[in-house]
Formats: sequence, C-alpha cells, structure tokens
Amino acid sequence: MDIKHHVIKDFAFADGTVLPSVSVAYAVLNASAKKTALVVTCFRGRITNTCTFTEGALRDHRVVVAALLGNGESSSPSNTPNFPQATLDYRDCVNAQYDLLANGLHIDSLDVVVGFSMGGQTTYHWLVMYPGMVKNAVIICSSASTSGHNVQFLEGPRFALENSIDYVPIANRRQPDGSVTDKPCVRGIQAFGKAYSAWLTSAEWFDQESYQTLGFDTRADWDFTTTGPNYNGWEADDLLTMLGMWQRGDVKKTGPTDSLQDTLGTIKAPVLLMPAETDQYFRPFVSKKEAGMIPKATLKVIPSIWGHLAGSGSNPVDTQWMDDQIVSFLGSK
Amino acid sequence: MDIKHHVIKDFAFADGTVLPSVSVAYAVLNASAKKTALVVTCFRGRITNTCTFTEGALRDHRVVVAALLGNGESSSPSNTPNFPQATLDYRDCVNAQYDLLANGLHIDSLDVVVGFSMGGQTTYHWLVMYPGMVKNAVIICSSASTSGHNVQFLEGPRFALENSIDYVPIANRRQPDGSVTDKPCVRGIQAFGKAYSAWLTSAEWFDQESYQTLGFDTRADWDFTTTGPNYNGWEADDLLTMLGMWQRGDVKKTGPTDSLQDTLGTIKAPVLLMPAETDQYFRPFVSKKEAGMIPKATLKVIPSIWGHLAGSGSNPVDTQWMDDQIVSFLGSK
Repeated sequence: MDIKHHVIKDFAFADGTVLPSVSVAYAVLNASAKKTALVVTCFRGRITNTCTFTEGALRDHRVVVAALLGNGESSSPSNTPNFPQATLDYRDCVNAQYDLLANGLHIDSLDVVVGFSMGGQTTYHWLVMYPGMVKNAVIICSSASTSGHNVQFLEGPRFALENSIDYVPIANRRQPDGSVTDKPCVRGIQAFGKAYSAWLTSAEWFDQESYQTLGFDTRADWDFTTTGPNYNGWEADDLLTMLGMWQRGDVKKTGPTDSLQDTLGTIKAPVLLMPAETDQYFRPFVSKKEAGMIPKATLKVIPSIWGHLAGSGSNPVDTQWMDDQIVSFLGSK
Repeated sequence: MDIKHHVIKDFAFADGTVLPSVSVAYAVLNASAKKTALVVTCFRGRITNTCTFTEGALRDHRVVVAALLGNGESSSPSNTPNFPQATLDYRDCVNAQYDLLANGLHIDSLDVVVGFSMGGQTTYHWLVMYPGMVKNAVIICSSASTSGHNVQFLEGPRFALENSIDYVPIANRRQPDGSVTDKPCVRGIQAFGKAYSAWLTSAEWFDQESYQTLGFDTRADWDFTTTGPNYNGWEADDLLTMLGMWQRGDVKKTGPTDSLQDTLGTIKAPVLLMPAETDQYFRPFVSKKEAGMIPKATLKVIPSIWGHLAGSGSNPVDTQWMDDQIVSFLGSK
C-alpha cells in the first residue's frame, strides 16, 4: 500500500497551538473509481490494518484512508516536537483531514465516511463540522460522546502506563536538535495492554475460546501476543495522546448548543450505526439512544460474541455481515 | 464488632507449605441465635464491611463471619513471613475455616453458608469439600471456576501494580527479625484501582450517574475515592495474593474428576445462586450454566444496574431484594 503524507503549514489546533507543519498520512485505494469514500483509522490503528470494505461494499468507491493525528503515521508526539498531547481533539483530526481532501486531493464531496471506534467518533465530528460535504456515514462500534463508563475503563491502561517503572515522557527525552533518546517502555506498555485486553472482546468470546479461530491454542497464548508483540512499534506517548482524545471525545463541542439532541439534530446525511451486541464499552444502548437523535439514522446491531472487535475487521463473519449492511444502506439511497 | 483470631498450629497449605501458625480472623454476630450461618469475606473485603444479612434473612442465625486468608485480617503476606503468596488456594481458606468452626467454635453443622464474589467461590469449595456439613448455600455474583474472561480482566490490575514505579515486593522488605520496612506503593495501588474500577458496576450505572446515590457529584469524584482512599490500609502483596487465588479458583480441584459437571453433581445441599444481571465479570450466563449442574439449584438474577456491586451490599435496594430471596429460599426448606 502506498502511504503518502499531506503537509499543512501553520496548522492551528483547537486548543490554540499553531505548529509550523502538520502531516496527515493517507492512502488512496481503488483510485479510479467514481464515487469517493473516506475511512478513518481507529485507536492503535494504522492505515494498513484498517478495515476498508474496499473489495465489498466500497468496491465502486475511491477510498481515502486517513490516519488520525497521534497514531504515529500522521503527526504525533513520537515524530513532532511540541505536539499538543494533552489537548488533541477530534476537531483537529477532522480539520486536518478536510485540508487533505480539499487542498491535497481536490475532493469537495464525500459519498460516504466510514469509521470504527475512534474512527466513528471522528465521523460524528465530520457530520456536524462539514455537513455539506458528507452524503452518507457509517459509524461502527462508536459513540458521539464518550461515556463515563468508557472514560473510566480507559483510566486503567492510562494509569498502568503512566505509573510504570519504565515510562519516561517523550518530552523529557527530546534533545535540542529535535531527536529523541530511545527509552523502551516494555513493562509499561505491557501493563497498558493487560489493562486493555479483557475489554476487547466479550465474556462469551473467552467462554467459547474464540481465540482459537485466531490461531491461538490457549487464552495465555492469545494474551501473550495481544499484550506484547501486538504493541511493537507503538510509542507510549502516542498511545496516551490518542487515549486522551478518546476520553475527551464529545461531538457537542462542535454543535449549536451543549445538548446532544441539538447537536445530532443538525446531521443532514443518512447515518448507518452498527454497534456490536456484546461490545463492552461502546454499548448498543448508547447507539440506540443516539439513533433516536439523528434525523436519518439506521441502527443495525452486529450479532456477534466478538465484542468491540466485531467492528474491527478481526472476524470475517462479522465483517461480511457489516459489508452486507453497508451495501444495503448505500444502495437504498 | 469484636474481631477474634483463631490460631491453627502447623497448618498445611494445599501446595505443601507448612506454617507453624496460621490465624483466621472472624466475628460472631447474633451470638445467641439457634441456627448457624457462615459468611465469607470477598476480594478486598474486611469482616466489618461484609454484607451479612444479620438483620434480615439471617436474623435467626448465629452468623460467623470469616476473613479469607490473604485479606490482611487473617494470615496474609503482610503479617506472616513465608506466606505462600503465589499458590494460595480456596482449599486453604476452607480448611482453615473448618478448623475454626470444628475446633474453635465446636460447630459441626452449618444451616447456611453465604458468600459474595470470592466468598461465593469459597462457598463452592465448602459444598464440595465438606458436603456433610453444609445444609444450604447462597452464592452471590460468583462462579465455580474462574472464567477466562475474568482471569484476563484481573491481569490488568495485577500488571498495573506489579510493574508500577513504587512497588517493592514485601519479601524484599522483610528484615531478619520478621519486621517489614514500610514502602508506600501509592502510585501502584492507584493504578491497580484504576484498572479495576470500570469493571465494578456497569455501563448503565455510569450512564445514569448512579455514583450520585453514593454521595458523589461527579464520576471524577467517585473515581478519586474509589481508586484512592478506598485502598487505604491495603498492602500491595495482600491484594496480589488474593487476586492470584481468584485467578486460579477452580472447584474442580476438589472434585471426583476434572469435569465441572461431575464436581458440581456431588453437591447435596440446596444452593441459591444470585448473579447480577449487569455484572461484567461474573456473568449470569455462567451461573445459569452452573445451576444446570447442581442437583438442587435455584437461580435468581438480581435485576440491577449496579453490576458486580449489586451483590456487595452497596445498594440498599439490591440488598433488600437479595434478602427477600434468601428468606424465601431458606423458608421453603
């Protein structure tokens, strides 16, 4: 996959920070297709492991996959001095992606925006911030405003990492020339991974030993990879920065009032919401509530024991199910 | 409450360790009542904060409240050199409690054993290890064998604490005279508390801001107390030792074969199982499965958004509901 970088000069973040240069990493798939889709990465997502539906529901779409700020591919603490770690906001991601589309790729209309998890929260921001540009949206295992339960769950991995014996903030390791002294945070990141791991799927998934369908004989084998090697290449501060954006995620910041109803009421595009039945932190009852506030919402609950991962592309059965729903949603327009 | 200690000489643990002296902390409530009940503490439970139903369903019972080994009141890493931290087992708790009852209090029959969470897992062990002694059992928000999902969840707090910047194992701080050098583990225990906290209740509980019924205005206020002051007085190694016993919890170790069906099939006493509808780690579907393997089981699911805490005595409405079920269960005998 050909990953490119769109550079924006003098980019202003929502918190007032202005950086001389910010980069959005992206890739364009199905480049010759007529329709256009934007797919946004999720927490701990890279462009290449993002579920894009490029061979199914979006096969007729030119698909732009854009990496969130903070993910290590786009501008992030790991590659950018003075990055606003503690205040990064979904609005920044959307503004940067808008610049990529408008000024980089000369795209002024999106047939569909698709996002899973943090990508879904970004999609909510797209719908409210650029209502004229988004014709349809697909929001998978996500929410418009991060719930108290979700914020609290994220406190676990955050504190596990920040208080670990080998965590040293990147700001304390940056040299005058901008380079960074390497300081592996092996134990801290594993503790982060452990505190995150049981939330990923569901009690039923463990009960049915579904890690075996991923090639792991035992829970311990799955745990070893999931909380260890799967974090290879991730910088602690990038993880913490994205996690903070997620905790602060609230589309109301972009709305006409401080009411979720008023904010979601501004959405003009048809929206397909697909929470997963067993998702432990983006609960379906929240999506159902949000669907009631979006003028043209379709709610389809993924019938799966894969919990949050049902929406990630990890399980082919769930991915096919979502693909079918997207085909039907876009086809009915 | 008058907390006493029953001392057992030359106590043999299941792992083969023999300690010259092991102590079981306990209290006797309703001392003059005719019937006898045993109530066992839970994870992070002390005798005084254990829900005993002493004024309701068990008002006609002399109630012996016994502290689990490892809880800091009974023999534990914090107060006992050479305590078998890595291998402590529910069998040890039951054998020590049996000694308390048989040799300390001269009780040879229990009208009912009641346990919540780890106390419930202990109760399962009582039923299989001393079938002739237990006439009835009440098991609240628990399981016979710790599920893979539950084991994985506990890896979070465990790793957060063990890899924290201020954790020093107690064995490394014990002096030749048996005393322990104090080394506060403030950050490690807070990280433990954070990684545990979102599991305690439920997504619905946070959504409905039910922490307000506990006197906290905001989630952040509740979080502050729940992950900080609520751990005051807890030694890191006691927490880790109990957590390990929980992770290894499996009543099959005491059964006739390695089959849960065969093991639970040996239970002669009527058992009331009360999982909570929204419990995130002792899921009701597991209790339902176990109820199907116990010859005389009654399953009543606590209708509550308080998650695991529904069974803890934290919410008066749930406690009353359970009390009513216990009255009806014991009354029908």
